[in-house]
Amino acid sequence: MGDELRAPLKIGICQMPVTEDKDINNAKARSMLREAAEQGSQLVILPEMFNCPYKTSVFQKFAEQYPGGKTIAMLSEVARQEQIYLVGGSIPELEDGVIYNTSFIFGPGGELLGKHQKIHLFDADIEDGPCFQESKALGAGSKATVVETPLGTIGVCVCYDIRFPELSRSMVLRGAELIIIPAAFNMTTGPAHWELLLKARAVDNQAYVVGAGQAPNEQACYICYGHSAVVDPWGRITARAGGEETIIYADIDFDLVAKIRRELPLLKHRRPDLYQIK
Amino acid sequence: MGDELRAPLKIGICQMPVTEDKDINNAKARSMLREAAEQGSQLVILPEMFNCPYKTSVFQKFAEQYPGGKTIAMLSEVARQEQIYLVGGSIPELEDGVIYNTSFIFGPGGELLGKHQKIHLFDADIEDGPCFQESKALGAGSKATVVETPLGTIGVCVCYDIRFPELSRSMVLRGAELIIIPAAFNMTTGPAHWELLLKARAVDNQAYVVGAGQAPNEQACYICYGHSAVVDPWGRITARAGGEETIIYADIDFDLVAKIRRELPLLKHRRPDLYQIK
Repeated sequence: MGDELRAPLKIGICQMPVTEDKDINNAKARSMLREAAEQGSQLVILPEMFNCPYKTSVFQKFAEQYPGGKTIAMLSEVARQEQIYLVGGSIPELEDGVIYNTSFIFGPGGELLGKHQKIHLFDADIEDGPCFQESKALGAGSKATVVETPLGTIGVCVCYDIRFPELSRSMVLRGAELIIIPAAFNMTTGPAHWELLLKARAVDNQAYVVGAGQAPNEQACYICYGHSAVVDPWGRITARAGGEETIIYADIDFDLVAKIRRELPLLKHRRPDLYQIK
Repeated sequence: MGDELRAPLKIGICQMPVTEDKDINNAKARSMLREAAEQGSQLVILPEMFNCPYKTSVFQKFAEQYPGGKTIAMLSEVARQEQIYLVGGSIPELEDGVIYNTSFIFGPGGELLGKHQKIHLFDADIEDGPCFQESKALGAGSKATVVETPLGTIGVCVCYDIRFPELSRSMVLRGAELIIIPAAFNMTTGPAHWELLLKARAVDNQAYVVGAGQAPNEQACYICYGHSAVVDPWGRITARAGGEETIIYADIDFDLVAKIRRELPLLKHRRPDLYQIK
């Protein structure tokens, strides 16, 4: 991008509630995406599993193929109609007989820019917290996802992926200045770790980090934490939701990324010759 | 260590002030180490550059060789006399004509268990913050440091090293359950990042993390942040200092490390085949 100043990128994060009904979920997503676009957002983000309850038993029923699936078609259509970039949270995707937890990323012509299949599957059994075995229902993705756009270079990963610093680092070393994480942290791991992880990835990588959570649904068997947030490359929260249905807005200032990387050149100081991470 | 319950490890962290006088510094270190031992600490930790002002122009004057240097001899003697494990913060070390920022680690017989030469040198020029060029005066270490002891497996790194998640990960993959960081964060980076980084390394690695800072000296040209802290593997602060001269104490519960790694098996869920960190 050279040394010229870049205009801030305006983003919107839709913290939407998710019901048991795909059509209701898609209608809600469509209306929130439009609202965010009308407010001037150039890039709009949905949460993980926005069209589907977050329970392994229903992923197959809600799964869609690309192309053809109606949720995926809706995302493409809204991106084109509103001329926005769109990180479509995630949905269950059926590909070659396997279901993935997949984020579809569209450009303002409605074109698919990329997709991220969640790499790290959430298999946990936490005392006084959730027991969840994603790997019983889902296949694991096999690549990091970095999308180059005229707005900037964007890394996308899904929820539990954020716990692995190696993945964010991989995306940043491939150029990402903004990392987007559609997510569905729960009421145990959310208060304990959600904001910490967003800040840590931002500070370690001197990049913007955006976490998009579902609005909590107290009737669901898996209650999400919400608390969508935007963290700047110095680790400061610049926008934050609570537990309500809402759209939050933020400016992404790529010049700040460049300034911080110049003043404290962390990425240049790395010593990959010394790291043993296998 | 098998499945049997392990007794908690009692540690003490000496947040000591550092003056321009090496002998005064060493006498202070000796008295704080003894106090921590008398209070029952089995492992005692000093901050970065505890015998020396943190300015590049004096590192050569204060530097010592192993064996022979009087600070190093003092550390060994106190460890033996008090029968404690001791992470000797760091001092300027002269080795083969190069000065390193080195942490000497002693066992309760006064024996050297290992040493860590700071790998990542702090070269920064931050607006409204410090300008510091460690690499003008110091050589960079070339290996991660993990020490196996009957008390547990301990990783040691120094200050700026903590900003590189790959290094902590390397130590944990080599068995570290406790990461110790003698440090001298400043009044800009300290409030912004110190506690966040300690918590992030703890949560990502499901390990205890101990940060040992100098007590701030308002007369020094580089004012340290202090705020020594202990973070458990779930990211909770279990002991914390402010900006005062003090010793803080904590129990390290290795059974908690095992429990959290069992409930949320992050380290087993890693996909190193997919990470590109070169």
